[in-house]
Amino acid sequence: MPLPHLTQARAPLTREVEVTNQHGERESIFIPAERDLTVYVDKRELVTLMTLGAHPEWLVLGYLLNQRLIASVDEIESITVDWEVGAASVKTRHGIDHIEERTSKRVVTTGCGQGSVFGNLMDEIDSIQLPANMVLRQSQLYAIVNAIRLKESTYKSAGSVHACALFHDDELQLFVEDVGRHNAVDTIAGWMALEQSTDSRHKVFYTTGRLTSEMVIKSAQMGVAVVVSRSGITQMGLDVAQRVGLCAIGRATNKHFLCYTHPARLVLDAVPPPAPAARERAASTS
Amino acid sequence: MPLPHLTQARAPLTREVEVTNQHGERESIFIPAERDLTVYVDKRELVTLMTLGAHPEWLVLGYLLNQRLIASVDEIESITVDWEVGAASVKTRHGIDHIEERTSKRVVTTGCGQGSVFGNLMDEIDSIQLPANMVLRQSQLYAIVNAIRLKESTYKSAGSVHACALFHDDELQLFVEDVGRHNAVDTIAGWMALEQSTDSRHKVFYTTGRLTSEMVIKSAQMGVAVVVSRSGITQMGLDVAQRVGLCAIGRATNKHFLCYTHPARLVLDAVPPPAPAARERAASTS
Repeated sequence: MPLPHLTQARAPLTREVEVTNQHGERESIFIPAERDLTVYVDKRELVTLMTLGAHPEWLVLGYLLNQRLIASVDEIESITVDWEVGAASVKTRHGIDHIEERTSKRVVTTGCGQGSVFGNLMDEIDSIQLPANMVLRQSQLYAIVNAIRLKESTYKSAGSVHACALFHDDELQLFVEDVGRHNAVDTIAGWMALEQSTDSRHKVFYTTGRLTSEMVIKSAQMGVAVVVSRSGITQMGLDVAQRVGLCAIGRATNKHFLCYTHPARLVLDAVPPPAPAARERAASTS
Repeated sequence: MPLPHLTQARAPLTREVEVTNQHGERESIFIPAERDLTVYVDKRELVTLMTLGAHPEWLVLGYLLNQRLIASVDEIESITVDWEVGAASVKTRHGIDHIEERTSKRVVTTGCGQGSVFGNLMDEIDSIQLPANMVLRQSQLYAIVNAIRLKESTYKSAGSVHACALFHDDELQLFVEDVGRHNAVDTIAGWMALEQSTDSRHKVFYTTGRLTSEMVIKSAQMGVAVVVSRSGITQMGLDVAQRVGLCAIGRATNKHFLCYTHPARLVLDAVPPPAPAARERAASTS
């Protein structure tokens, strides 16, 4: 089956605006762009996504996959994005069965969440099998955190965006920013599906945002067994990670992190020396 | 018309969990609670909200108001929340007209956004009239930022929540945290409606999250003309604030801030002294 035909629509990712600072002075800063993209599937309006607009075709593909409206890229003939009219036109090969019913159930997920998750993603998680032998070494985790730190980004120039990234062990494969991080993870899912990589054993998913249930479920759906976040975790994110066998790591900055679930997937090959205070305590009790 | 009858359902806001840190040590931390609350209106299922659960009745009321499903609290007879079953049962006095149609349009808004905004909120914004004489003094802005800094909070103990607050000038009236900040702002809207305060001239809305279009629209709908954020602004947030006459202030920490729109609403009565470098530049050119 040939891959779907995708346009490569591009648009500016930042906009310069004038602001007033605390001294009453006018200054110029950059803010991230934000545009609405209405998705049509076989000419039927499905949803409007608010996005930075870096990779709209991968975003739409990943959205359809993560919402379980399609099972594979093979079902898609083309995705045509036109920023002039803010539309993404999806042409399927054989239509989507029961699309009306399958998009009728609404769940408003937690913050930064893609509010409308169609269907019952939670019902699906028990069928997910993550590779048992997927592990990450602590030294690789530190390399991942450092790679993100060095990345030139819209965040550095304009702030107010979330980033997600996909790593193969500690090698960066794709870095995606968006005004909504749900879009960033969907974009990565779209890209992964096009790559048709069936071996997810070495894949690590990184996000600057919190590990909500939605982020954990989407990672598990992509077959990724280790997720890393600069932020923390919510209770449902933790519950889902525990249940599907996913290693969730948060608060990952510099040499610090917290492993919330399945620590057996993390090989501690680079334990940092204790902090001075801890060393003193150790010395005084030895 | 009597106020609606509300339960006062309570549930723990944090949960203690065991994690593994970078030294391979087990430690106990707190994470925010997160529970699903399915809203039924006159026994018909409407939506499931993921929430911290601090003020579920105000949340549901504010949600119905902000989604424009009801125009006033008078339409509600009671809201009964039962955490045992994760349900909020809303009883209206006379039903909600055309609820099926009005909840059918989906927009997935930007990050941290309440994904499903029913209806066309954007169509409404041009009808909003914000009080022309609402201004905030810089000294009051600093008092607001300081009041938030001193607040004991779930964020301080467990992280991973957003906070919103409502001020009367610089006096804190209500402080709300939630795993999704859309919930926090809806909770404030519900509380405001119960208070039946018709004078919004002195109201200031504070949020730790970004000023997305959704946050700006909801503030404007509440009649609040000044919003303050610890974070930045998105392009659509800025566009909407510009259009409705709302003063949007971001990056507000310590004495620093950026005023993105309508700076005439901000009275600069407490301009901080220039930084040492700027003083030197000023001295060398004078």
